[in-house]
Amino acid sequence: MAVNGVNGVKTNGHAIQAGPVIRVASRLIEGRALAQDVWSIFSAANLPADCINLGQGYMNFSPPQWAKDAANEALSSVSGNHYSHPRGRIRLREALKKHYDPLFGRDLDVESEILVTSGANEGLYSVLTAFLEQGDEVIMFEPYFDQYLPSVVFNGGKPVYIPLHPPSAKQNSITSDDWKIDFEELRRAITPRTKMIIINTPHNPVGKVFTREELEKIADLAKEFNLIVLSDEVYDCLVFDGNEHVRIATLPGMWERTVSVYSAGKAFAATGWRVGYLIGPSSIINPSLAATTRIVFCSVSPLQEAVAAGFEQAAERNFFEIQNKEYEERRNILVSVLDKIGLKYTLPQGSYFLLLDISSLTWPEDFPFPESINGRGRDFQACWFIALQLGVSSIPVSEFYCEEHCGIGERFARFAFCKDVDLLKQAGERLQGLAEYLR
Amino acid sequence: MAVNGVNGVKTNGHAIQAGPVIRVASRLIEGRALAQDVWSIFSAANLPADCINLGQGYMNFSPPQWAKDAANEALSSVSGNHYSHPRGRIRLREALKKHYDPLFGRDLDVESEILVTSGANEGLYSVLTAFLEQGDEVIMFEPYFDQYLPSVVFNGGKPVYIPLHPPSAKQNSITSDDWKIDFEELRRAITPRTKMIIINTPHNPVGKVFTREELEKIADLAKEFNLIVLSDEVYDCLVFDGNEHVRIATLPGMWERTVSVYSAGKAFAATGWRVGYLIGPSSIINPSLAATTRIVFCSVSPLQEAVAAGFEQAAERNFFEIQNKEYEERRNILVSVLDKIGLKYTLPQGSYFLLLDISSLTWPEDFPFPESINGRGRDFQACWFIALQLGVSSIPVSEFYCEEHCGIGERFARFAFCKDVDLLKQAGERLQGLAEYLR
Repeated sequence: MAVNGVNGVKTNGHAIQAGPVIRVASRLIEGRALAQDVWSIFSAANLPADCINLGQGYMNFSPPQWAKDAANEALSSVSGNHYSHPRGRIRLREALKKHYDPLFGRDLDVESEILVTSGANEGLYSVLTAFLEQGDEVIMFEPYFDQYLPSVVFNGGKPVYIPLHPPSAKQNSITSDDWKIDFEELRRAITPRTKMIIINTPHNPVGKVFTREELEKIADLAKEFNLIVLSDEVYDCLVFDGNEHVRIATLPGMWERTVSVYSAGKAFAATGWRVGYLIGPSSIINPSLAATTRIVFCSVSPLQEAVAAGFEQAAERNFFEIQNKEYEERRNILVSVLDKIGLKYTLPQGSYFLLLDISSLTWPEDFPFPESINGRGRDFQACWFIALQLGVSSIPVSEFYCEEHCGIGERFARFAFCKDVDLLKQAGERLQGLAEYLR
Repeated sequence: MAVNGVNGVKTNGHAIQAGPVIRVASRLIEGRALAQDVWSIFSAANLPADCINLGQGYMNFSPPQWAKDAANEALSSVSGNHYSHPRGRIRLREALKKHYDPLFGRDLDVESEILVTSGANEGLYSVLTAFLEQGDEVIMFEPYFDQYLPSVVFNGGKPVYIPLHPPSAKQNSITSDDWKIDFEELRRAITPRTKMIIINTPHNPVGKVFTREELEKIADLAKEFNLIVLSDEVYDCLVFDGNEHVRIATLPGMWERTVSVYSAGKAFAATGWRVGYLIGPSSIINPSLAATTRIVFCSVSPLQEAVAAGFEQAAERNFFEIQNKEYEERRNILVSVLDKIGLKYTLPQGSYFLLLDISSLTWPEDFPFPESINGRGRDFQACWFIALQLGVSSIPVSEFYCEEHCGIGERFARFAFCKDVDLLKQAGERLQGLAEYLR
């Protein structure tokens, strides 16, 4: 790949002519978009065929039949196969309004306060396209969802990293609530170039559900320094143990400066449908519409109909309550195994990830690690070892930190529990083998 | 919408506090993304309810059943509802390879030379994200597909416009081949900052199918000045009258610097499926993959399966041959009406658009035009008049020119003939009424 103009280089006086010199944009390099990422290192193709994949966050079960039925119906129509309005199909926007009105305590305007996007990912990207100028700073909490960094950089922004601080490795019974923000550190990170702060609650990968008090403190800073808050709430329907998911947009004075990001993929176990939505004031939604219209034009029509049906029928079917209990049960399968063998972990209050503390884990010194693992953090070795030796894949967490802070993440491996009970039980049985490798 | 910081303005000594001052990125303004566009002015909502919509380029018929069947099958599976590889599903890439190998005369590598995107639009956008630095110049021919301008500007590029020159209004029997490139003008437009040239063949809205000779001249310039060619060929399966669609990537020395953009929406009458694909050398595809992965992550899974089935079965079903004839017939319905009443037009050799020359058309001086039309070109008036008086909507072509050149476009209105025969016949009957308004 002629990334940096490798051609035309002279060797022993002879010009090498391998093709034209086509330089890629520097944003790809600054956004770490060309480096080998953790997903390809730990992709199924690189792991044993029978390895249970708890690495990537997609479900091994299907979306609800009644939502799929609506996709089929749309496919049978004419208009369900053609362009939707860039704002999203009106049936979906109406269904979203009905679902989210009580959650936001507002009478949401389907024309200017709800925007359907091509997945939450593209929704988030569009907001950044709509608001970032070259050099604008965007604060994000570590560990961060790895798409934030390139999305900010591609749009000319500069990421500023604030770690969530985990409790000491010595503490017992850690929950995601024990990961704390240092608010003085957060305040110090704000400069005249700070434009936006990205929060993620429930949090991937920590599982933290930000408390009202934490959100109030973030809100106060956002108001003091006139920041936009991009609130990534794609796991909003997965909150456990009676915890409350607070939407920062509902705090006093915050609606006007907050855009909340949601995902049908997460809500309905349909990560391949690529339907997401933004909710916020027209001053944020309309520019984001202008961006998404140019980036993708519109989101996929038949699956917007499916998601509309999903929301229309979710309440009467108690769908989200039942699903939430199912995920809690899934989480608890992993938890009970870890408790049994005495491995430490962060009990997630939301999302579908669990962080295993690998501090006490050891592996043979001569264990054969591939080139891609060498020179990376201890968590890379741990994840590789667990995948190869025990047959369960996970993702090393240092990848979700900037270089300066990646030592914090090296203590953890992320396991996704968006899998059915049978697979999780099977994974649990395998993971019991970790008991042999504790120090 | 607080676009430019309208708050904090003092009136009679009182501060108006309407909300926070949130400035949008200047790229939205430079990319003309916030202005009222031609699509909203001529949207169905603004026109009489019974107006026949030949404005927007979507079909009033469905994709083939056998492709939809594959979507249903995918929806019934588990993996068909979840994330696809960012490169696209392997079944689709294999099907594309089988279809395009002979057309490119290559043994395309499904891992590095074919990339599935979220529609051709997002594919094109990703290429620009992957290669443009701030201030890089991108040459495009006018009239241009209106998404090019913001897509270039959002990625820091500067559009440079080269008009296709239409023949004199006095010439009879004009075809799209009569729209000519002035190659000296094109050469003069190339500067040290020129990075890329966008071509579109078959062309929207002219219907021009670039000749081999024209493409060779463009290719020579691209090679001389080391330019990337972004070849938008979304109408590649719609070429009429025995004309040949030449792919610039197949000309000598051009594969290495060309990326070709295609659209399942156009190929299978499924504009709402949002599946497109790029074909090119790995030096262009891999950076574009890095971009699309961050922008949308991946394209929609069940509809990738549908498009795969579409290509798998197209040959044995003679699908593209039959479809091509159907479009030729659709074109000819419009053409025969215009011939009958003696209105001039450009006979399109490809795509599904026809340009009506409105030079000889008049309308009552006191015809009531809305605010959005006033101050725009004569073509805006013509399109509004035809929609309101005769009940057929079209799109004014000056919108697809830069300000300096929009006088060229003012002579034309674009009619889309991607509609079924019945609707086109009905539109044709209505358009006969134009005979009354010729001068």
